[in-house]
Amino acid sequence: MGLEFLDRLKNELKPDTEEALRVAQSIKSLLGLDLKLYGSVAKGTNLRGDYDLDMFYETNGDKHKGFEDILNAVKVRGLDYMIKYSEHPYVKVRYMGYNIDLVPISSTHRSAVDRTPLHYRYVISKLDDNKRDEVRLLKRFMKTLGLYGADNRVNGFSGYLCELLIIKYGDFLSVLESASKWKIPVRIELETKSEREFSDPMIVIDPTDANRNAGAAVSLSTLSRFIIYSKGFIKSPSEQYFHIGRENRSGEFGVLLSNPYELEDKSYGMLRRIGKAWRDYLEKNKIFIEYLHVLVRDKYAYIGGIPIMSKIQYAELTPGPSVDIFERLETGYLKDERFYIPRYFINDIDNLTEKFISDHNLRGFSVIKIGYDLPEFRDMLEVEYWREKMLLRI
Amino acid sequence: MGLEFLDRLKNELKPDTEEALRVAQSIKSLLGLDLKLYGSVAKGTNLRGDYDLDMFYETNGDKHKGFEDILNAVKVRGLDYMIKYSEHPYVKVRYMGYNIDLVPISSTHRSAVDRTPLHYRYVISKLDDNKRDEVRLLKRFMKTLGLYGADNRVNGFSGYLCELLIIKYGDFLSVLESASKWKIPVRIELETKSEREFSDPMIVIDPTDANRNAGAAVSLSTLSRFIIYSKGFIKSPSEQYFHIGRENRSGEFGVLLSNPYELEDKSYGMLRRIGKAWRDYLEKNKIFIEYLHVLVRDKYAYIGGIPIMSKIQYAELTPGPSVDIFERLETGYLKDERFYIPRYFINDIDNLTEKFISDHNLRGFSVIKIGYDLPEFRDMLEVEYWREKMLLRI
Repeated sequence: MGLEFLDRLKNELKPDTEEALRVAQSIKSLLGLDLKLYGSVAKGTNLRGDYDLDMFYETNGDKHKGFEDILNAVKVRGLDYMIKYSEHPYVKVRYMGYNIDLVPISSTHRSAVDRTPLHYRYVISKLDDNKRDEVRLLKRFMKTLGLYGADNRVNGFSGYLCELLIIKYGDFLSVLESASKWKIPVRIELETKSEREFSDPMIVIDPTDANRNAGAAVSLSTLSRFIIYSKGFIKSPSEQYFHIGRENRSGEFGVLLSNPYELEDKSYGMLRRIGKAWRDYLEKNKIFIEYLHVLVRDKYAYIGGIPIMSKIQYAELTPGPSVDIFERLETGYLKDERFYIPRYFINDIDNLTEKFISDHNLRGFSVIKIGYDLPEFRDMLEVEYWREKMLLRI
Repeated sequence: MGLEFLDRLKNELKPDTEEALRVAQSIKSLLGLDLKLYGSVAKGTNLRGDYDLDMFYETNGDKHKGFEDILNAVKVRGLDYMIKYSEHPYVKVRYMGYNIDLVPISSTHRSAVDRTPLHYRYVISKLDDNKRDEVRLLKRFMKTLGLYGADNRVNGFSGYLCELLIIKYGDFLSVLESASKWKIPVRIELETKSEREFSDPMIVIDPTDANRNAGAAVSLSTLSRFIIYSKGFIKSPSEQYFHIGRENRSGEFGVLLSNPYELEDKSYGMLRRIGKAWRDYLEKNKIFIEYLHVLVRDKYAYIGGIPIMSKIQYAELTPGPSVDIFERLETGYLKDERFYIPRYFINDIDNLTEKFISDHNLRGFSVIKIGYDLPEFRDMLEVEYWREKMLLRI
């Protein structure tokens, strides 16, 4: 099969976490809090070059108290910090060149984040060094193809989900072999059987809680892409699945927006809804676009796509009354015994987009400009084009 | 209802047939043949100004012998003559300023023409002078609107059929009142009941032969027009239904052809088939035309119509494979879990017509030119436009 490159990749992806673990120990002493390291660095499944640390401060139910404790300790020690928010607020610090998230959690386990210690314990009980290599291959594959991350930007596979897939199927190739045969919806159980029905396209029963779907974040689109890429890799394995490529395309029509939101996750959620509404509006008016792109960077956001045909003009005939029941008609023409009334469709993407913008709620985003081949997100689009092209190369 | 103009029209349409009847008597003596006058002049249902004479030479079965007798007699007397052909050959002469058809028929009654004496006897037994006036109104109405004539040019109502309708309904207005409520197919019986099923849109059982449909020539299109015009007249009677109007329209796209056929009837039959094939071909390619026009004059013929939209461009999406069964695709794009493949439609009437001309059997016609608003048949088209416009005025 010519898979020698996988062994080389495993070596290239293997991290050196010694320093990161020392840094984690150091900040724990510095802040005087009982912080636990539970992220991918702790599980040894992080990729080389990714040493971001996820440290958790467990309280007995009151997460807000935990947050205050962390914030005080950080302020007292004069660390560089930012307050961030995902399911609840946490603190991010920059320390000895490392990004460290300091996250309060509750031991009564309500949210996904609160379950982190359970996930950590389950994963480390199941993975040996070889399997960690396989997790890293899978994560890198997902990352290259834009499938990695449970956030609103990707709606994809979390690190934990990648670990569960390796635990379930044994290694990277087996995950892809299975995925290439998946039917949607996909339902996977590990040790734990679950009676519960889920309506998500990707259902992976969390082995630490049979009521939870660890695959809930995976959208239909992301799951579909993973299945196709898996088919492609199994049919013709290649290292290109592990190195992000670029491809130039022209003819993309887009809208550059100013992004009012601080949280990228919120921006993506909002923007994706606008993007879908825009696409639906165009389709209703018979303009179809390939590659709906929804992108955010700092203060700017973007929706766009390549129109299959940017201007359309045609007429359709609606059969009108037959002469038997004909009473009065303003327009139309008689053909045999029936009147036909033409309906005209004349549209172009510019006008429709202008109309969409003025008629729809843009949820706080405001338009900077619209047009073809806007340069602002070109680098990100080149990666997107390459990923889409990969789907058809298979 | 404001119908006084009908009485005036009756007077205007009343013919003076004395001279024509003398001419008929004269040619009968001149040729020394037992010719019978059976046409509309004989029945007194001809329109003023139409004194063409139809004279019949009855033989006992052998029509060819009859034809030879006529031809010899005409030659011996040195008359101006032409040999013509409808169901069988006959001779047309020009005599004392009159056009006279000299038609051999068989008393064993096989063809429609052979039934002429029976039709003549039936009609004169049923019509008085008042009803003759009504027949003439109906004929003139039909003529103005392009519905008169059982030939291939019109596919419409014969003189005999107009007479039968007056015999059935009593007068012009009653015919139109009934017609305005007709459902297609229309089936009319007079005295004679018939068991026979006909598949024509207009079925009028011939009172002289229950096996024959006197309305067989009426096409669906002509019948439909008659029904609509009848509704229009009943709703709002107007003299414009008796005077041919004209209307200028531009944007007609047509093909001017050279006509290889001597018989107009044959040209129209062939040309109508070509015209319909052309229209179908355009429709298949999403170009629709109003007003399919099929016209013949001497050595020239014409098909044309006004395109509802002369150029079209658009794409349709065909749902392709879902990712489950996806194997390989050259084109298309992924949206959620399914590929979509675009089909492009880019056509204009010029190119399609060129293609139609080169790919289809033109049945002996050859193309002189194609394009918009060709001037050659403009006068005939102006009448056609007016008639079509009348349909929508109702």
